[in-house]
Amino acid sequence: HEAGDLPSGDLDDPFRNDPTRLPALKVLKDKPFNAETPIELIPDNFLTPNELYYIRHHLPVPVVDPATYKLTIEDSTGATLASLSLSDLKSKFDAHEVVTTMVCGGNRRGALNDLAAVRGFKWGAGVLSTAKWKGVWLRDILGSSGIRNESDDIKHVWFTGLDTDFSQNYGGSIDIDRALDPRADVLIAYEMNGVEIPRDHGYPVRAIVPGVLGARSVKWLGHIRVSPDMSPALWQQGPAYRMYPAEVTWENIDQAEKPAPIEEWPVMSAICSHAPGAEIYAVDETVRVRGYAYSGGGRGINRVDVSADGGKTFTPARLLPRPSQPRGRVWAWTLWEAELPISVADSETELVCRALDSSHNVQPERPETIWNLRGLLNNSWHRVPVSIVVEDDDD
Amino acid sequence: HEAGDLPSGDLDDPFRNDPTRLPALKVLKDKPFNAETPIELIPDNFLTPNELYYIRHHLPVPVVDPATYKLTIEDSTGATLASLSLSDLKSKFDAHEVVTTMVCGGNRRGALNDLAAVRGFKWGAGVLSTAKWKGVWLRDILGSSGIRNESDDIKHVWFTGLDTDFSQNYGGSIDIDRALDPRADVLIAYEMNGVEIPRDHGYPVRAIVPGVLGARSVKWLGHIRVSPDMSPALWQQGPAYRMYPAEVTWENIDQAEKPAPIEEWPVMSAICSHAPGAEIYAVDETVRVRGYAYSGGGRGINRVDVSADGGKTFTPARLLPRPSQPRGRVWAWTLWEAELPISVADSETELVCRALDSSHNVQPERPETIWNLRGLLNNSWHRVPVSIVVEDDDD
Ligand SMILES: [Mo]
Ligand SMILES: [Mo]
Repeated sequence: HEAGDLPSGDLDDPFRNDPTRLPALKVLKDKPFNAETPIELIPDNFLTPNELYYIRHHLPVPVVDPATYKLTIEDSTGATLASLSLSDLKSKFDAHEVVTTMVCGGNRRGALNDLAAVRGFKWGAGVLSTAKWKGVWLRDILGSSGIRNESDDIKHVWFTGLDTDFSQNYGGSIDIDRALDPRADVLIAYEMNGVEIPRDHGYPVRAIVPGVLGARSVKWLGHIRVSPDMSPALWQQGPAYRMYPAEVTWENIDQAEKPAPIEEWPVMSAICSHAPGAEIYAVDETVRVRGYAYSGGGRGINRVDVSADGGKTFTPARLLPRPSQPRGRVWAWTLWEAELPISVADSETELVCRALDSSHNVQPERPETIWNLRGLLNNSWHRVPVSIVVEDDDD
Repeated sequence: HEAGDLPSGDLDDPFRNDPTRLPALKVLKDKPFNAETPIELIPDNFLTPNELYYIRHHLPVPVVDPATYKLTIEDSTGATLASLSLSDLKSKFDAHEVVTTMVCGGNRRGALNDLAAVRGFKWGAGVLSTAKWKGVWLRDILGSSGIRNESDDIKHVWFTGLDTDFSQNYGGSIDIDRALDPRADVLIAYEMNGVEIPRDHGYPVRAIVPGVLGARSVKWLGHIRVSPDMSPALWQQGPAYRMYPAEVTWENIDQAEKPAPIEEWPVMSAICSHAPGAEIYAVDETVRVRGYAYSGGGRGINRVDVSADGGKTFTPARLLPRPSQPRGRVWAWTLWEAELPISVADSETELVCRALDSSHNVQPERPETIWNLRGLLNNSWHRVPVSIVVEDDDD
């Protein structure tokens, strides 16, 4: 073979078994596959249809035989405490459902890269989706293996995927307190929006960690291990999901002085109804703006402010009806819409949105103030430049 | 009597039994007494000395006889389920301790009032303090009265104080989930920093609701009631502790459309070492800046950025050692200090600080973007204008 992209089906192509995807997805990379949910479709569905759910793969999609699938539960020495088949999971534990939004730490990275180069996919605002997951509580699985309390040997829970490049598998970890907290709703899932989890989303079993960035909701889950330490996986230990101060660059980065791994997204929001450069017709007199808002850690959205004059004035958006979720467990986004008057004084303007969460945190006004070398957690006010078109009657 | 202030000791003065206070407190009002902790002393003590703890009273300090004191636990009809003496509290329940920062919702209101008039005391940045409280878990008290789960009749827990103006008593409420959550650490306290709670801080018994603004930690606690509804008290129902959008004014306020009561402070920080107008000596070459950072809801502080050039460049501060608190239960502040080079190019500059919390929320850059008619939750970047004095050798 010559080097380069291999045709699908080629036995040397590690991605040859990847599933086919909907062309509507906004693809950033083919192998491994990485694609956004089309942002303009987001406000149409509180639960994202499975085939439109964003995809963030680090490795090829593994082929898992449900008949022989086993999830192993391991103690801090790596000894197997339990080995659970898919039917064990479905029959030995009570089933539960969680509706949660999942967000990639790189959502809206592209806008940080526009300020100064950052590493990672230059994502837009569509690297998030919402689903209803069904499965069993992680704490029930741990409890059945005798793990019911934090101890010196039990501080973290590792999730290791079956996806591999033969030198390493994808993995990540959460702390044991979150794993055991009945109010944290950490799920080991086998259904997504009422059907088997599609292969692209972790078939047959994945972790779902509500309120925490997507990287910890490990797909194709093969192993759960308790440990005194965090997962040794690259994606837990490396800079991929850590928020460095703006002063830190790839030249002066100190690998020994690492910020804590990111767990929860701060409050954020985005406009979905208009792409940059969209034309708004002045004859309509108002513009209907639609979007989403979300905050990590189970915090809900109290208010979304929207502007059609570049941020000079704001109007509270109408928050769309959504399933109620209890205090501190508002895992899913809030969709919203606003009808704003158009000022024809300027032919160019910006639509702007910003949200307030249930802890009264707000979004930063300028992305410059949160720039970081990995382009993570861009929750600055979302600005969409648009043109106001005054139509000529003679047209 | 003539109208006007009555001399202390006058039988007609409802405040005649108020305790004496340390003159170091920064007093905003005498009757009822309202005073800040002197901000310059804050960085000296992780636990604020009791006599320097901020005081925010709405009514006269009640005289409570510990020998006859009773805390009543009431069901949703108001029927008494239990009546607990001080010795009942100390003998019938296990004692626990919580270290928590408490913050008035009006901290730094003065700076919002500088933009446009707001109602309420024009507080500076010293309406917060930290103490180690000892008492019994609220959930243990509720449990001993048979209240162990949320139900249609049990959605909120009212706290009613013994302080009164004879038409109403001070009160507030929290939701039952927080009251029962073992990770929320809600305490019914009888000790403050190792001694009986001083009269100004709730003697003999008060509620301590960690991570929630001070208004819910009701002092001189007389009654705990469960209810399907929030407390009817003015301070729970009125606009005093609700965050209105900037567009809402006292002229256009819609009393029927109230934002949710504030529970948790967003991430915030302040400089304590320098008052506005302070002089910095260029000959020192660097300036040592000290302050505090805090976030509500048990979120810890990941980073504090400090600037000595008005916010053009920031340097991470050194976060001072503090007692470790578990994930999601970091109830107490983080004190910090930074040593920054002085630029003598400008004779006037601003010291600026801003914090990042464990959920990666940041503070808003400009107070204009969070202005609200009650001047609540001002967590904008803290800016302190200072002068740089270039001393003359001939002086
Ligand atoms: Mo991600
Ligand atoms: Mo307050």
